[in-house]
Amino acid sequence: MTADFQVWSREVATRMEAALAEILPPKAIAPSRLHDAMRYSVLDGGKRVRPMLVFGGGLVTDADPERLKVAAAAVELIHAYSLVHDDMPCMDDDVLRRGKPTTHVEFDEATALLAGDALQSLAFQLLGDYRLSDDPATQLRMVQIFAVACGSRGMAGGQAIDLDSVAKALTLPELEYMHILKTGALIRASVLLGAHCGVALSAADAEHLDRYAKCVGLAFQVVDDVLDEEGDASTLGKTAGKDREANKPTYTSLMGLAGAKKFAAELLADAHAALAGFDARADRLRQLADFIVHRDR
Amino acid sequence: MTADFQVWSREVATRMEAALAEILPPKAIAPSRLHDAMRYSVLDGGKRVRPMLVFGGGLVTDADPERLKVAAAAVELIHAYSLVHDDMPCMDDDVLRRGKPTTHVEFDEATALLAGDALQSLAFQLLGDYRLSDDPATQLRMVQIFAVACGSRGMAGGQAIDLDSVAKALTLPELEYMHILKTGALIRASVLLGAHCGVALSAADAEHLDRYAKCVGLAFQVVDDVLDEEGDASTLGKTAGKDREANKPTYTSLMGLAGAKKFAAELLADAHAALAGFDARADRLRQLADFIVHRDR
Repeated sequence: MTADFQVWSREVATRMEAALAEILPPKAIAPSRLHDAMRYSVLDGGKRVRPMLVFGGGLVTDADPERLKVAAAAVELIHAYSLVHDDMPCMDDDVLRRGKPTTHVEFDEATALLAGDALQSLAFQLLGDYRLSDDPATQLRMVQIFAVACGSRGMAGGQAIDLDSVAKALTLPELEYMHILKTGALIRASVLLGAHCGVALSAADAEHLDRYAKCVGLAFQVVDDVLDEEGDASTLGKTAGKDREANKPTYTSLMGLAGAKKFAAELLADAHAALAGFDARADRLRQLADFIVHRDR
Repeated sequence: MTADFQVWSREVATRMEAALAEILPPKAIAPSRLHDAMRYSVLDGGKRVRPMLVFGGGLVTDADPERLKVAAAAVELIHAYSLVHDDMPCMDDDVLRRGKPTTHVEFDEATALLAGDALQSLAFQLLGDYRLSDDPATQLRMVQIFAVACGSRGMAGGQAIDLDSVAKALTLPELEYMHILKTGALIRASVLLGAHCGVALSAADAEHLDRYAKCVGLAFQVVDDVLDEEGDASTLGKTAGKDREANKPTYTSLMGLAGAKKFAAELLADAHAALAGFDARADRLRQLADFIVHRDR
């Protein structure tokens, strides 16, 4: 990771934290406990990888950072809601997330359920509230891209397949399909939403960005599995080896540790290839791909 | 209820059932169990009051029925998702809904959680996918109205307050605030979304429609409490007297049965007064208000 990228990624994270703190309803406003739980679930946590991808996508089309901030906040609210629901007892039953008690542990299950629900609504509210494109029709297209990425053919669908896969022998294509939905859909939406905040994209460029985002989304999950296999709770901020214990299929269980690492490297090369036709404005996306594959947590 | 209104309301319900069956992803498409649960939660159920309010609102502005169908489907998906989550063990823990096992009983808790999540996403996808207004900026405004009605200052917030109110002595204004959010927000959004599908509304007319919808939304809840107090499971399709048993404050517990009935009648008169300046195109809304207050289930 170059020092320059490190500075930029910290800047994005700081900007996001401020934006999210402002966008989320304050605890002082009723219903206080719900707003408290929403803030707890979103603020002061995570690597903010998806916001970085929104900003990276936006740089390619010279998008206004004020717009990117809102689009990135919407993505991060969705990501946070999915974690809150995913951690609940009826799903993964996790008590620790980012080194803190999960939302249903800190509050209660009903509040966690409603906080997740309200975070999803708030994400869509942002796309309706703010001007994110000079062309309202493009902004409606953003609502659509975003909703598809969240729904049953996107993130929620991936989680459903993940759930069904426990103790099953998934094939590699099945595992890939699951992750393309579960993690990949929102990551792809992040890059595209960012890009749509700026000048209009050609269909070819949109396709190249989508291919980049698809590779990065899959690589993100492959590396997650590698880290889960190698890591320990202190660096990951969550229970290590949990997926293996739960008897869930992972890239490392299907390909071996070395095979999974090799696959991540191939996806990284593909991501770079997809950006070959772009100028230096795509450099942050290039660095982000490197960062996602080479991160150690 | 006039015979004419009865025919119309059946037409709307039939049209909605067909629209929802087409809009919801088929079970044949993966993830099959999730799609099955989504369809189970939405189809073949309910009085479709909110779709009627969408169509009623749209008649006032001469809106295209094809657009109203989509807007009404979005509202009904949100209503269905809220019931699925509300019925879960960590919330109201209900096993019966519309005379059928609730979604988490028929499937499982995790599937119910994800089905609710995905129904919310699908509702917003509809608002992005279809052309609902000649003016894309108006349609973005619809996304915003809709998202606010769903979120922490709307339906989800109302449910959070409801949850916190168990065994508490709410005052009448507190109870009213809870219901304005929990049931009222989506009912108000229904009327406004329908109206926005047609020709542009003046600010004054939008305000009158909103006042109408606010009265109807509250009346709906007051009558619900009256029916819950008087009814039995066979006509309600849910466990009667459940709120009283759960020690939840209701209009009947705070005002008595006669007081609650009188209040519903006052709200009905207010709803009619709000529509005084509208011509015959608002007749369905007038009939709907009568229907909501005089229904027996």
